[in-house]
Amino acid sequence: MANREIPYKIYLEENELPRQWYNVRADMKNKPAPLLNPATHQPCTLEELSHVFCTELAKQELDDTTPYIDIPQEIIDFYKMYRPAPLVRAYCLEKALGTPAKIYYKFEGNNTSGSHKLNSAIAQAYYAKKQGLKGVTTETGAGQWGTALSMACAYLGLDCKVFMVKCSYEQKPFRREVMRTYGANVTPSPSMETEVGKKINAEFPGTTGSLGCAISEAVECATTHEGYRYVLGSVLSQVLLHQTIIGLETKTACEKYGIKPDMIIGCAGGGSNLGGLISPFMGEKLRGEADYEFIAVEPASCPSLTRGVYAYDFCDTGAVCPLAKMYTLGSTFIPSANHAGGLRYHGMSSVLSQLYHDGYITARSVEQTSVFAAAEQFARTEGILPAPESSHAIRVAIDEAMKCKETGEEKTILFGLTGTGYFDMVAYQKFNDHEMSDYIPTDEELKVSMDRMPKVD
Amino acid sequence: MANREIPYKIYLEENELPRQWYNVRADMKNKPAPLLNPATHQPCTLEELSHVFCTELAKQELDDTTPYIDIPQEIIDFYKMYRPAPLVRAYCLEKALGTPAKIYYKFEGNNTSGSHKLNSAIAQAYYAKKQGLKGVTTETGAGQWGTALSMACAYLGLDCKVFMVKCSYEQKPFRREVMRTYGANVTPSPSMETEVGKKINAEFPGTTGSLGCAISEAVECATTHEGYRYVLGSVLSQVLLHQTIIGLETKTACEKYGIKPDMIIGCAGGGSNLGGLISPFMGEKLRGEADYEFIAVEPASCPSLTRGVYAYDFCDTGAVCPLAKMYTLGSTFIPSANHAGGLRYHGMSSVLSQLYHDGYITARSVEQTSVFAAAEQFARTEGILPAPESSHAIRVAIDEAMKCKETGEEKTILFGLTGTGYFDMVAYQKFNDHEMSDYIPTDEELKVSMDRMPKVD
Repeated sequence: MANREIPYKIYLEENELPRQWYNVRADMKNKPAPLLNPATHQPCTLEELSHVFCTELAKQELDDTTPYIDIPQEIIDFYKMYRPAPLVRAYCLEKALGTPAKIYYKFEGNNTSGSHKLNSAIAQAYYAKKQGLKGVTTETGAGQWGTALSMACAYLGLDCKVFMVKCSYEQKPFRREVMRTYGANVTPSPSMETEVGKKINAEFPGTTGSLGCAISEAVECATTHEGYRYVLGSVLSQVLLHQTIIGLETKTACEKYGIKPDMIIGCAGGGSNLGGLISPFMGEKLRGEADYEFIAVEPASCPSLTRGVYAYDFCDTGAVCPLAKMYTLGSTFIPSANHAGGLRYHGMSSVLSQLYHDGYITARSVEQTSVFAAAEQFARTEGILPAPESSHAIRVAIDEAMKCKETGEEKTILFGLTGTGYFDMVAYQKFNDHEMSDYIPTDEELKVSMDRMPKVD
Repeated sequence: MANREIPYKIYLEENELPRQWYNVRADMKNKPAPLLNPATHQPCTLEELSHVFCTELAKQELDDTTPYIDIPQEIIDFYKMYRPAPLVRAYCLEKALGTPAKIYYKFEGNNTSGSHKLNSAIAQAYYAKKQGLKGVTTETGAGQWGTALSMACAYLGLDCKVFMVKCSYEQKPFRREVMRTYGANVTPSPSMETEVGKKINAEFPGTTGSLGCAISEAVECATTHEGYRYVLGSVLSQVLLHQTIIGLETKTACEKYGIKPDMIIGCAGGGSNLGGLISPFMGEKLRGEADYEFIAVEPASCPSLTRGVYAYDFCDTGAVCPLAKMYTLGSTFIPSANHAGGLRYHGMSSVLSQLYHDGYITARSVEQTSVFAAAEQFARTEGILPAPESSHAIRVAIDEAMKCKETGEEKTILFGLTGTGYFDMVAYQKFNDHEMSDYIPTDEELKVSMDRMPKVD
């Protein structure tokens, strides 16, 4: 095995926890395009956004000039329960691959929500509490984000109302029960509790719901109940900001141990994990202080960066949220039912979209059977059972390490391991039973949803 | 909150990992009674035990004089993937309780097996590999031990054959799939692959199996296949030895930060977690160097220490394993079906049994609804969703902290948090839905299984 001076797991000390988030937009010459009011097509004002989001979060959403934003002490105290998260040297994987590359991963799965989502959940819940609100509403698909938010709300004594896509609510009851254990109110969506839910139930009797519908219900619930606001687990710039805790810790650990990554790899759904991991390194690149190769990995079945268009689109299927300029497949795009993991969002963070558009990031799409093969190899060598989402990054990290084996290059590869797969065993079972297949949408299929996008000048 | 000089999580450095296990039997004046051959009632010889167990492990089983045993470097390398495990100061729980007590817990759940079981699984798999064996066999109920063993075998390239109680295999498929992902061969028990399995299937058509039956199948499979041995996840003295890594790390962390526990609390099923946690502290007590209060917590529905007898009994229902002298309810005792968590073993480690018999340990039994109430409170304040087993220790730790609140005593309470509850959501759901009840066996019920115990002079 390689240089043993670097331990298997690098844990920073508690006093090395970052005390500020980094706002990469401050260092971008080409700023991300502003959110637009869907009715007027004018940039959203703070007042408009404050009807849906907490005021402080709306401010963070609009702030593209302040480079560092203080993390409130109460959030730092919460972070201390599960952070700093380890930066792990994949000694065993390197050995199994026989590669000269050095592989590192930042592991965000060591908390009960099972992923990095908790980093933003506590921040959003904190600002809601500070504003004197009673509670927050949100949507969840398989339940990762909903779990994280439930934990944060339980800690702060805040009401948490989760609209969970009905088919997940019924078929994947375990995350639902985790949320309930944390005191959240979990409602299958579409429900009869909102106007939009009633309408959808009347129009499509027996429907098992969709993420887009759940978003619409959560937004309606927040805006029609005194003392509530809506919160979201990805895509938004505020979420990326909170997630920079991942990259800041990683950078501190790298500097402490003299690690210089050549490439940084992350899976990309809405972009919160990738954006959080790469932001501080991207800042160096934008300021001309250092260079890194950044790789976004997305599923071939939902290829927003590699096959989408860069245009204004709705963030949600219900078209109640602001318009964002992003790489998108069209808000009505829904990945094939055989797609197992998350990363099923039609668009991409507007920050990452702009950086990708400007050539600072490359993107790669991978098929799910190869992703699960990488997951299995990783689990057997490194011990951790990865989430399907995270395994997209593992796939490309292994591919790059194998290229190094061919060329003899000793590259340093860093990737984000966003979470664990304990609640994804149905997908693993499909893979174990050789019943998993791949699906790549045709150009014609993509054209259908892209043609339905709003026309913005 | 209390003294902030102690961080939320104490992570030892990699080079502080213990390099020897501690064998508490060496410091016991009254040694645990020897295992007996079930046919002759004579103490088992090394040769006899070597038919079932790896030779090195059989030696460890019999060794009650060597105080420290070197941990092979290969095992230390594996430990580095998930150890040192954190010693956590429960600041948030203390605050929620309003107690002057200081509460610490040693957290063993930060690995994919979800519990401390991995500590012994890798040791047992390592010695099997070193002996040149092809593989190992074992039984598993809900699958925690089987998962740990699968991970260890995958790492070492060893064949792993798990007999899983049929009702768990069918009703709790997720841990089964984790084991399969790690390459284990998982067979529902009773199967048609062993003579004992065929016999049971013929005698009780449609039976959904039991742990005792699965043990018998695993032992038969090991002893009838060239190059295989049987391994077990608890009860045995060798397992306790490996698990002392928990207590040794805890003691090092306590000494580093000047923490002096007044009481040490652990849940007790077969005793591997409790024994591993308390051994190094017990050594001090046995040598008269320090004093601690040790509390074993067991379910009221399976109360081997608090209501069992101290006598020779079979370790397994099938009565194929050696006889052990222990606190036992009788090997035919099966806890009520409404018992949700683990800790359903009829007996107790012979090491702990002797220490309990000699007054070094006290024991307490708790009912499951109060255990889940403690689990929920812990999850909401400390963030971690605990395993039902671990939550027995949480229950008593909270009870003791509340006593301190009454008396004003600033006791230091340490408990073992053996694992996470991600695969126990069916039990949590019962609790969330107020459908969980308690059950305490009557004296008459206990008498039935106790009367069936073997008579040993």
